[in-house]
Amino acid sequence: MSENRPGPVVDTSASRHARLRPVAPRDVRITDDFWAPRLRRNREVTIPAQHAQCETTGALRNFQRAAGSVGGDFSGRYYSDSDVYKWIEAASWSLATDPSPELTDRLDSVIKLVAGAQDDDGYLNTYFSVDRVGERWTDLVVRHEMYCIGHLVAAAVAHVRATGQTALLDVALRACTHIAERFAPGEVPGTCGHPGLEMALVELYRTTGDERWLTLAAWQLDSRGAGVLDGSEYLIDHEPVRKQSRVTGHAVRALYLYAGMADVVLETGDEELRTALEQLWADLSGGKTAVTGGVGARWDGEAFGDAYELPDRAYNETCAAIAHIFLAWRMLLLTGEPEYRDVVETALHNGVLPGLSQSGTEFFYQNPLADAGRHRREEWFSCACCPPNIARLLASLPGYLYTTSDEGLWVQLYIGNEADLRLADGTPVHVDLATELPWEGTVRLTVTPEAPTEFTLFLPVPGWAGADVSVKVNGEPVTVATDAARVALPRTWAPGDTVELTFGTEVRALAAHPRVAAAHHRVALARGPLVYCVEQADQGDTPVADIRLTGAEPWTAEHRPELLGGVTTLTAEASALGADDGPLYRPFHNGPVAVAKAQVTAIPYYAWANREPGAMRVFIPLAAR
Amino acid sequence: MSENRPGPVVDTSASRHARLRPVAPRDVRITDDFWAPRLRRNREVTIPAQHAQCETTGALRNFQRAAGSVGGDFSGRYYSDSDVYKWIEAASWSLATDPSPELTDRLDSVIKLVAGAQDDDGYLNTYFSVDRVGERWTDLVVRHEMYCIGHLVAAAVAHVRATGQTALLDVALRACTHIAERFAPGEVPGTCGHPGLEMALVELYRTTGDERWLTLAAWQLDSRGAGVLDGSEYLIDHEPVRKQSRVTGHAVRALYLYAGMADVVLETGDEELRTALEQLWADLSGGKTAVTGGVGARWDGEAFGDAYELPDRAYNETCAAIAHIFLAWRMLLLTGEPEYRDVVETALHNGVLPGLSQSGTEFFYQNPLADAGRHRREEWFSCACCPPNIARLLASLPGYLYTTSDEGLWVQLYIGNEADLRLADGTPVHVDLATELPWEGTVRLTVTPEAPTEFTLFLPVPGWAGADVSVKVNGEPVTVATDAARVALPRTWAPGDTVELTFGTEVRALAAHPRVAAAHHRVALARGPLVYCVEQADQGDTPVADIRLTGAEPWTAEHRPELLGGVTTLTAEASALGADDGPLYRPFHNGPVAVAKAQVTAIPYYAWANREPGAMRVFIPLAAR
Repeated sequence: MSENRPGPVVDTSASRHARLRPVAPRDVRITDDFWAPRLRRNREVTIPAQHAQCETTGALRNFQRAAGSVGGDFSGRYYSDSDVYKWIEAASWSLATDPSPELTDRLDSVIKLVAGAQDDDGYLNTYFSVDRVGERWTDLVVRHEMYCIGHLVAAAVAHVRATGQTALLDVALRACTHIAERFAPGEVPGTCGHPGLEMALVELYRTTGDERWLTLAAWQLDSRGAGVLDGSEYLIDHEPVRKQSRVTGHAVRALYLYAGMADVVLETGDEELRTALEQLWADLSGGKTAVTGGVGARWDGEAFGDAYELPDRAYNETCAAIAHIFLAWRMLLLTGEPEYRDVVETALHNGVLPGLSQSGTEFFYQNPLADAGRHRREEWFSCACCPPNIARLLASLPGYLYTTSDEGLWVQLYIGNEADLRLADGTPVHVDLATELPWEGTVRLTVTPEAPTEFTLFLPVPGWAGADVSVKVNGEPVTVATDAARVALPRTWAPGDTVELTFGTEVRALAAHPRVAAAHHRVALARGPLVYCVEQADQGDTPVADIRLTGAEPWTAEHRPELLGGVTTLTAEASALGADDGPLYRPFHNGPVAVAKAQVTAIPYYAWANREPGAMRVFIPLAAR
Repeated sequence: MSENRPGPVVDTSASRHARLRPVAPRDVRITDDFWAPRLRRNREVTIPAQHAQCETTGALRNFQRAAGSVGGDFSGRYYSDSDVYKWIEAASWSLATDPSPELTDRLDSVIKLVAGAQDDDGYLNTYFSVDRVGERWTDLVVRHEMYCIGHLVAAAVAHVRATGQTALLDVALRACTHIAERFAPGEVPGTCGHPGLEMALVELYRTTGDERWLTLAAWQLDSRGAGVLDGSEYLIDHEPVRKQSRVTGHAVRALYLYAGMADVVLETGDEELRTALEQLWADLSGGKTAVTGGVGARWDGEAFGDAYELPDRAYNETCAAIAHIFLAWRMLLLTGEPEYRDVVETALHNGVLPGLSQSGTEFFYQNPLADAGRHRREEWFSCACCPPNIARLLASLPGYLYTTSDEGLWVQLYIGNEADLRLADGTPVHVDLATELPWEGTVRLTVTPEAPTEFTLFLPVPGWAGADVSVKVNGEPVTVATDAARVALPRTWAPGDTVELTFGTEVRALAAHPRVAAAHHRVALARGPLVYCVEQADQGDTPVADIRLTGAEPWTAEHRPELLGGVTTLTAEASALGADDGPLYRPFHNGPVAVAKAQVTAIPYYAWANREPGAMRVFIPLAAR
């Protein structure tokens, strides 16, 4: 565990069962043309705008009210405290990489508000203050008291690791002490309708070294399935977590819960929990994940659907894609398996990024894979979980680029950056990674250890590149196995050694498993890490709904710096149906359908709905053959 | 208008702009093997069970509480009165065709409870009684005060027309007088977040001849789009109804509203309203109706989707299919156009009937077109709109079989029956209609006017029969135009004249409009008026999800009296995919997919989920070619 020094987002540096250890966001400076402007916008636009929203909605004022310094009614939902905590987390990680006296001042005053609202007994939830004190802990099913404390703890840990300051950590420790006494491990079952506290508690254990928080996290997990939450499948209380193998219920809740399970396994090595996690992951990745990495197909209940239920109008909550990243990241740290890295990359680019407008001020809550043109981003929501969740993830993104292990250094995300890292033995290594990804597939690394040092550099071969990869070390080609998902380069690395990787960025027409009825006889386009879509604004007079592909079109990729903040578009001569005035249902005719040639242009899915409203589609029908 | 004598469900006998006039349920005795047992079960099982539910849930007790005869809290939802009113309507129509002293007693005592709960000023809603009197009429958007009165009026009208008794009508008149004073036409805009009162008011006008109820109905329509309901599109308040052309918002609300519009047009001939109705119908039938006649695709908000948004997991609320029938029936009465009749037939067999279990005691609220096996009927719902809606529709079904006009007699639904009808000039005609529909396509009518009488017999050619129809009058073939949707037989009909119609019942593989992405490269099976599905219970080891068709399979129809209450199954040698352990997303290969032969059996969609839980699908993928 760390001694309150700047640290990583998920700190497995002392986790006995972790294969990998992330690096601190502060040690990585993202420098590329794609993510660096987005992180800047997050700092300069999104984080200030979200602070303003916390003021406008009364979420900040609720803390003053709980402290007794203002009167009036509580504002917002019973979990609105979590908006503020997520903002604190976002601001903290932002300060880790980009110090700002102004933001520091603002953050400190928000933390003061939070601290001021805490009761003497450690309890903290502004909804259950003033006029609702008597209702505390009376409804674990619906109210989100532990969930909110989970975000408080996550914020406090981020604040410590980003700034070294412990003011909020002290608040979080008092709140967790209150919970540990009220729902004592082994004595009083206690767990929340909305998980989230579990992973935060493990992180608190990692930060403080106090095992009671790990014990409490494990107790919260094992309190599930005992009826505390009415045995609700929706709340993932239908059976003990260690017996679960089917991903179900509310998507964000389920994946926050499983991320917490993974955290406990990283610390304890609990084999039963680990087996459950592997089965749950197989269920999730095998039939319940959208091509974008979005998860949670159903609008009713923001929930997982059945296996292969992956409709066009998927719900795919932005928070669920973030939860997907949280789970995949922990599974990656546990196993080192590259499939988890691929999920982080896919969900980041195609599940989370669409949640944010080009302006940085509007957000999607849901991310459907097709739309008629009425789904638009909004500035805020009455349930405002997604916007600050995006902000905190982006602010912490530098912490997701590398991991280390006893064997050496692992690149995880190919995002251009300069990093000052330390190997397991403490050797400092400067890394300079330059790439035009997600647009072009070349990556150039310069590795500069303090002195020549023997270690292995692990470089993932993304799933999207397949076998189309070449690697050179100091200009000399290296042979890569055709099915390798990772290149391991053991070597005595000398200052200035270079690695050049080139991944194929051919346009891929992706089909889904044949049981995905909603993708039957259709393809989705992808290039590099990006999933594409067709949006009406690019199709001229051809209605998006009438576009038909063969699946074998030769696509032309063209980078257009002026479009949508700079995107590579894909264009092909495809085809389109003519007008059809026939009835809605008609006898099937087993023959070719008349189509006309049509120029079709696809844009990255993340960029849709930033222009005039119009139809959009990811999975495009194939023409009848 | 009638003089409180037994009458039809929708009484257009004096409607100046009606082309057709329905007959009274009491005059038609359904005698076939398909519907007659269902109506008996409705009387003997469903209606008593629903009375028991109204007792168990406290819905009946709420009336005693409002009358002051019992204490305690209100039970259920703020619209639970409507459960009781729909039960009264169901019981009334049941008594119209099948007198029962026991049911009459029970009905009379329920009506006494209702009457006892009415305030001196005519107000009646048990939720807003005792402790909520001060909240009356404070929230037209959310609370359903007018909606509940609409069901009261519909029940009262049914009670009068079925039994001639006016006890409940007096209650309804007092309640409507209260509303007419509180929201006076031309003075105080008033309309309800949940429509329904509009069509009831027109029926009240038809029953009493008092024009103020027609005026009030029209005023409620024109109060929409004026901001009374916050301009909500979901509540169909976004623009004046006479300007609307796009079906949107909550499906049941929208179609109840439009049915009320049609009622007003039937009386007033309002051309602007009529044009709006035609445009709305075109939008509904052209892109927002499931192949089953179900409507309202979205689970979020029980709402219409965008055009062609017709997914597998459609919401298709049972009540929405009933509302669809209400609207189509009124459009049929207005225009005589056979397309509306087809919708009544389709929605009845495939949109409403699936809502009811084989036992008559369990109900579907949603009717998805595919399921993994977890969607099951339930005995009741906290929002219990659907069960008594099914019961009242079934009880009134005899009233949907015929209409008359100045030209003669129109058969509308081919359901076996004996009827004693009167032509426009009052001539009594006995009709005996025998058919094995929906299983076999032959229909035999015997027409017995009191004496030889000249009139036209109008016989629809259902959309499902297409050109495959033959007609004989007294054994002599009659030539039918190949595209006729109706056969008109002008003749001097003599007692005992016979007509024999034979409609083709070839199995139809139906494709959807190419813009229906969710049905792309798939077909639905239909035979006669029934839409079919494949359910796992019939497929042996072949998973439903793996079934593939060519669309040109020769299907074998076999009637199986022992199965599901007696159904005709469809069987064919089709094909099935093999196991696929590949990833969820993979490169598209433009070639044939390996399939193996598989015997596939389809059952009528209405019959699914009456056996062990298992996957079900209506639109079946076509094999790659």
